[in-house]
Amino acid sequence: MSYGRIKATQLIDKVTTADEAARLFEHGMVIGASGFTKAGDSKAVLDALARRAEKEELKITLMTGASLGHDTDAKLTRAGALAKRMPFQVDRVLREAINRGEVLFVDQHLSESAELLHNNCLPPVDIAVIEAAFIEADGSIVPTTSVGNSVTFAALAKRVIIEINTRVPEAIYGLHDIFQPDNYPHRNVIPIVAPENRIGRRSIPVDINKIAAIVFTDIQDSPADIAPPDAKTIAIAGHLLRFFEDEVKKGHLTDRLLPLQAGIGKVANAVLSGFKDSNFYDLRMFSEVLQDSTFDLLDSGKLSFASASSITLSADCYDRVFANLQKYKDRVVLRPQNISNTPGLIRRLGVIAINTAIEFDIYGNVNSTHIGGTNIMNGIGGSGDFARNAYLSIFVTQAASKDNRISHVLPMVSHVDHTEHDVDILVTDIGLADLRGLAPRERADRIIRNCVHPEYRESLRSYFDRACQLRGGHTPHMLEEAFSWHNRLRENGSMK
Amino acid sequence: MSYGRIKATQLIDKVTTADEAARLFEHGMVIGASGFTKAGDSKAVLDALARRAEKEELKITLMTGASLGHDTDAKLTRAGALAKRMPFQVDRVLREAINRGEVLFVDQHLSESAELLHNNCLPPVDIAVIEAAFIEADGSIVPTTSVGNSVTFAALAKRVIIEINTRVPEAIYGLHDIFQPDNYPHRNVIPIVAPENRIGRRSIPVDINKIAAIVFTDIQDSPADIAPPDAKTIAIAGHLLRFFEDEVKKGHLTDRLLPLQAGIGKVANAVLSGFKDSNFYDLRMFSEVLQDSTFDLLDSGKLSFASASSITLSADCYDRVFANLQKYKDRVVLRPQNISNTPGLIRRLGVIAINTAIEFDIYGNVNSTHIGGTNIMNGIGGSGDFARNAYLSIFVTQAASKDNRISHVLPMVSHVDHTEHDVDILVTDIGLADLRGLAPRERADRIIRNCVHPEYRESLRSYFDRACQLRGGHTPHMLEEAFSWHNRLRENGSMK
Repeated sequence: MSYGRIKATQLIDKVTTADEAARLFEHGMVIGASGFTKAGDSKAVLDALARRAEKEELKITLMTGASLGHDTDAKLTRAGALAKRMPFQVDRVLREAINRGEVLFVDQHLSESAELLHNNCLPPVDIAVIEAAFIEADGSIVPTTSVGNSVTFAALAKRVIIEINTRVPEAIYGLHDIFQPDNYPHRNVIPIVAPENRIGRRSIPVDINKIAAIVFTDIQDSPADIAPPDAKTIAIAGHLLRFFEDEVKKGHLTDRLLPLQAGIGKVANAVLSGFKDSNFYDLRMFSEVLQDSTFDLLDSGKLSFASASSITLSADCYDRVFANLQKYKDRVVLRPQNISNTPGLIRRLGVIAINTAIEFDIYGNVNSTHIGGTNIMNGIGGSGDFARNAYLSIFVTQAASKDNRISHVLPMVSHVDHTEHDVDILVTDIGLADLRGLAPRERADRIIRNCVHPEYRESLRSYFDRACQLRGGHTPHMLEEAFSWHNRLRENGSMK
Repeated sequence: MSYGRIKATQLIDKVTTADEAARLFEHGMVIGASGFTKAGDSKAVLDALARRAEKEELKITLMTGASLGHDTDAKLTRAGALAKRMPFQVDRVLREAINRGEVLFVDQHLSESAELLHNNCLPPVDIAVIEAAFIEADGSIVPTTSVGNSVTFAALAKRVIIEINTRVPEAIYGLHDIFQPDNYPHRNVIPIVAPENRIGRRSIPVDINKIAAIVFTDIQDSPADIAPPDAKTIAIAGHLLRFFEDEVKKGHLTDRLLPLQAGIGKVANAVLSGFKDSNFYDLRMFSEVLQDSTFDLLDSGKLSFASASSITLSADCYDRVFANLQKYKDRVVLRPQNISNTPGLIRRLGVIAINTAIEFDIYGNVNSTHIGGTNIMNGIGGSGDFARNAYLSIFVTQAASKDNRISHVLPMVSHVDHTEHDVDILVTDIGLADLRGLAPRERADRIIRNCVHPEYRESLRSYFDRACQLRGGHTPHMLEEAFSWHNRLRENGSMK
């Protein structure tokens, strides 16, 4: 045991095993756990909870920052431990249980869970489980690779379990900027006017008397598995970089652009990687998760500063970052997700937001979450926080997939997460559509021209033309045919 | 002429007729005009523009705050003067032209038009037309019954036409709080932490050299025509007031509630009127438009302060307010709409937002704009600005209409303006559904139980049950049947 990591020495008698700590959970409780995009999650206590739930009736509501690593959601699902889960997940086993209706899932904007808890709009948190690098002398928690909702959970939970991860060096101290709006609902301003502003403390305050157990682990975060760029992601990144260059030429942006947000995944990585060989410089990120590409850009000198709520890296990059923490700490900050994703800051800073769509339609409505309008994939995550408030709201997806049996550009999306009002730019490997200032009929023409796969262009044009003739309207649609492409896919395995 | 209203005496030679001023417009120009919910709009110059366009080819893009009064949009439409219109309208003639595809309409969040202009995301404004009570010695404009986007138009337009309305007393000076974020896109905070905070100046700054013409009018704003409460609106208001009382009992809110936003129309008026005989007190509004009911509540002592971007009143109330301006000026403030509707402030202040839906679905998605997914009614207005960021996002509508041939609660909405992620409470005359913390299947059950008209309850339950059995999923839907209610209405004149 590394008791040196407990600077509040009166807490040393709280040290226990994960199995003992998991005995604190009771059937029906609400648990708030750290973890955001597989980073800084509980590795031992939630695992022990799953094992306990295999043997006895123990169903909980589990709130986190975002997704968990180490198949924890799968283990909890298989053990029947999850009555309700929020606000995000990416686990295959859990996803299938949600889609069977066995686990209730609340798909929330990532900035809002903390709001809802502070405002008594959700049931109160019974126990918080928070991964820590160490505990300060006042009992406050120095988090690890994510902050997520941990500040809110620590403040509001009746009891707190801390999981000290000795795999994370204590030198991580200073990476975090812990700020919470005071005095809900009568709040003051959040005084951030640039991504690099630090406005809070370095550790998460917690009432020392609430700390019920301390558990030690030494397990590394699950590594991010990012597919390398392929022809399509390279094409998408190319369209976007040319668009940014054109905006600079027009005098709309400078070579420094504006703070960037990029969702998780290979397209975001391809776009950020594309900046390495560009003329852009002194870039900044104001995002929710930092991936390998962020640290590559920092190393290349193109990126000056990055703000987010978590760091999710491949195994190699993890080692590189942790061996050079001192170097990165001045140029990276991790914040609570209700700060990293807060609408007011995203608008104030003028963020350029790049997120991935599952499908979009000819009028610019975006589906980020549902397959066939019914089965959830992951969740809306922070895409809504950013898209609604960004200087530029950009969504990217491939034009077609599965041997072109599926078109990702459709007459009507089967589920709407981002409305036409909130979408500025759409990009596929085929091309880019700039929708700013366009009415719906103009949007349709531009999207069909620029973004749709050639094999679907004619039939999408036909849908639009017939809708204009037959029904007219501000947003011409034939409702009886709007989902015919989805229906064909379900019945025949192809949208063609 | 009341030249005394031009304190910048060097501008007196700019005084001209509306017809002369209208000669400044050229085919293809972008015009930014004052006016928000029929208040503070140009009465003479846009009218003269319509007359000119009847005789010659003169098509413009017209941006406003929101809707115009005096049938101006109808006149411009009939004259063929509108190539494109944004961000909102309520005119029948214009609406029909939009739905025929003859006028391009861009349906924007009301807080965003100013953002888009400042950020070069829309074509630049050629001429601003702004109604004024008077012109200050420095050329700055004291607006009348709305502020809208006038501050942005005045700042960015190449030339400015001022329409001095002598019907508005000069005593209106001091009603407005004119603040604009500085230095786009590198903005500072907007330092409002309570509805009553005044942070700006009393008049709209304008480069005096840009003032190209001054026109006098004495025409009053078009009066608001608000239908009196009926059984349904009274029922909706009753459900909402009981909900607020319950929230107070649970300790979630105090008797002072939180700042209220209410959309325009008879439901909003009924809810606000309901407060008069309630136990709530020291209420505040942080809204976009103030109607008669606001002034009734101020007079009754229940309401302490109201902040908005415009005042739209019935003829009687207009006279009462203007005869007592001094009394109201300490308790009412009008702001630019990119301040009244700004996402960060709405979240910071914890606004309770009450807006009207055209229809909503069993999962809580709301359609505020389109009939049958195709024809636009008015536009999204500020409902998205408020709903996305509010402490409580409430949408109201009647359960059924047209002899119950139309149900307003549906399997799937035909157009999405507000997603399930942004909707907390739904209310019809039948009842209220509190959706906070609920997964989609729980939402469906509660909405069907509480909100749907009894004549449709069984078939909506049947849709949901069959979707669960046949397709399952996080959000069970049968896409081939999702719009069957809309299709039946179109084909048979009834959803039954």
